[in-house]
Amino acid sequence: MPFNARTLALPTTIPFVGPEALERRLGRPFLARLGANESVFGPSPKVVEAMSRAARDSWAYGDPEHHALRSAIADHLGIRFEEVVVGEGIDGLFGLLTQIVLEPGDAVVTSHGAYPTFNYHVTGHGGVLDFVPYRDDREDIDALIERMQAVRPKLVYFANPDNPTGSWHEADAVRRLMDAVPEGTLLVLDEAYSDLAPASALPAADELRPNVLRFRTFSKAYGMAGVRVAYVFGAAETVAHFHKVRNHFGVSRMAQGGAVAALEDQAYLSDVVARIVRARDRLGQIASSAGLRPLPSATNFVAIDCGRDGAHARRVLEGILDRQVFIRMPGVAPLDRMIRVTVGRDDELDRFAAALTASLADASD
Amino acid sequence: MPFNARTLALPTTIPFVGPEALERRLGRPFLARLGANESVFGPSPKVVEAMSRAARDSWAYGDPEHHALRSAIADHLGIRFEEVVVGEGIDGLFGLLTQIVLEPGDAVVTSHGAYPTFNYHVTGHGGVLDFVPYRDDREDIDALIERMQAVRPKLVYFANPDNPTGSWHEADAVRRLMDAVPEGTLLVLDEAYSDLAPASALPAADELRPNVLRFRTFSKAYGMAGVRVAYVFGAAETVAHFHKVRNHFGVSRMAQGGAVAALEDQAYLSDVVARIVRARDRLGQIASSAGLRPLPSATNFVAIDCGRDGAHARRVLEGILDRQVFIRMPGVAPLDRMIRVTVGRDDELDRFAAALTASLADASD
Repeated sequence: MPFNARTLALPTTIPFVGPEALERRLGRPFLARLGANESVFGPSPKVVEAMSRAARDSWAYGDPEHHALRSAIADHLGIRFEEVVVGEGIDGLFGLLTQIVLEPGDAVVTSHGAYPTFNYHVTGHGGVLDFVPYRDDREDIDALIERMQAVRPKLVYFANPDNPTGSWHEADAVRRLMDAVPEGTLLVLDEAYSDLAPASALPAADELRPNVLRFRTFSKAYGMAGVRVAYVFGAAETVAHFHKVRNHFGVSRMAQGGAVAALEDQAYLSDVVARIVRARDRLGQIASSAGLRPLPSATNFVAIDCGRDGAHARRVLEGILDRQVFIRMPGVAPLDRMIRVTVGRDDELDRFAAALTASLADASD
Repeated sequence: MPFNARTLALPTTIPFVGPEALERRLGRPFLARLGANESVFGPSPKVVEAMSRAARDSWAYGDPEHHALRSAIADHLGIRFEEVVVGEGIDGLFGLLTQIVLEPGDAVVTSHGAYPTFNYHVTGHGGVLDFVPYRDDREDIDALIERMQAVRPKLVYFANPDNPTGSWHEADAVRRLMDAVPEGTLLVLDEAYSDLAPASALPAADELRPNVLRFRTFSKAYGMAGVRVAYVFGAAETVAHFHKVRNHFGVSRMAQGGAVAALEDQAYLSDVVARIVRARDRLGQIASSAGLRPLPSATNFVAIDCGRDGAHARRVLEGILDRQVFIRMPGVAPLDRMIRVTVGRDDELDRFAAALTASLADASD
């Protein structure tokens, strides 16, 4: 069979097994879905209405230029239309990015334990990953700078706020990283959780640089994970390359219509963000009450340090899954001493609290 | 900037400019949208209902294994779950296919004037296209066999029924092509229009071969072009490679729910197919009445031979666009003496007929 060598060498494992697959394996449904950093508070009712309306028009392809949506995003950020490219989730945009940048063997620098789907697309296009460790459970900007200046990779990945730790850096630190990007390197700034971050953590949207690409999504605070719509913004001459390879008709009418409606309903977003902050505080209290350490979070989830090694955290996680609460954990040491729990409604957090207590009792036996 | 050489060499032109972009350029809306081979008859009302329901659940990612949809497709075709992979339209699947097969410089054989988006993904991954001409306005199976045996390309593309001509070959001829695929080559059998083809044109779905991939979509007869959902089926060990690189969460909840509902409503599909056949006959009559030759079609569109050269057909097309009817034409000689018109409702076909008559009068001046 004529598959290329790099594909034949790829593993069949995937970054994230879906909760549906776990349910099929466990033979029971989850009663709380707190593992994928989705927003249980859902999208704005106006978004649902816009998508239902678009469903009826879905005999027609969506606008391949995403004119209305890109205009709305550009207005929202105070940048120009040409500085925005829309795609099928940040994951889809990462697939395109690695396609247009990488040659087999090219180096890519990221943090050890950072977003696995970025790594997945890098290796899928023949890139070679080079890792720096987290420091104090945060991405280590100094280490990233040192490593990228030594390796001069094609891409450097940095998430702010970060997944899976929930940590963040202030805008000045991010700017320091931007300033240090060497010639021939692009900085991939993953801002999936930006709507949940303190304003002080985000460089101004119109601080565009030719060697920085910033990725944002409607999957998190806007509550549209199942819709698949995200965007990248940056200097026009940089983002233009996406148009040469993207799946032009790939963003559905429902996604385009829904995302425009989401941007128009900023009151709903503010309300959801407030609810997420309250639920996040409560999640931290649940962890503390159980004798565990919740990490500070600027996202819609909390990483909880289970205080021992990866095997222990894995036992805690399995006990929680067995009690029909879906959560996840980082896959890589030393972050794998944590479990990662998405915020939920009160009843879901009650269920998680009970499952955590029972699972910890089991895991300590 | 660190973009790879093959991307820097890619053109900024794209395979299809959307009708929305033409409307923005012309400054007026189209009154009939007959250019993108969408189904003006739309999806089943049950599909719209399923998608609206899924819109409310779209805070959650869709099942990345597409379990319900792949099961439904497998049942529908009489094949196994493992033999089906779902993706974001056939275009999206072509992007993945070229990613997993091609190395820069690899040869790919297709027909000169066949589906441009396949070519787009080939060149986007560094492949080099090698063309055989159409013969008598149909893909030339003998020429494809001869060429692939001489070139031994990684991929051979064959659409049945064909776009942009609407022509088709019988299953026996397709099998002859399958039998001739050399070692190290994959046959890409694009069956986007299969639901509109005579049964005699389609090899049985369970005739799986390790070196043949068959692509089908919900965009055409099922009326779901704006939803983005399609699938590839073939031998399990062949299609498995898509899982190593695909965007696992890329098919929306609305797409998955809608496609399952579409498969369940075969009565609606039969009704739409009958409506398309009637409209196609009428479109042929409109062409004949105008003194032009409609090509036989097994699709939801009719290619109309304008009887002179590409410049003439282009003038006819422009005159029709000016009259607010959106149609397209093949981009490559000798097929570019045709215009390509999607079937429409009666009022849309009336509008096209009037625009055609007027445009022909102008073009003959």
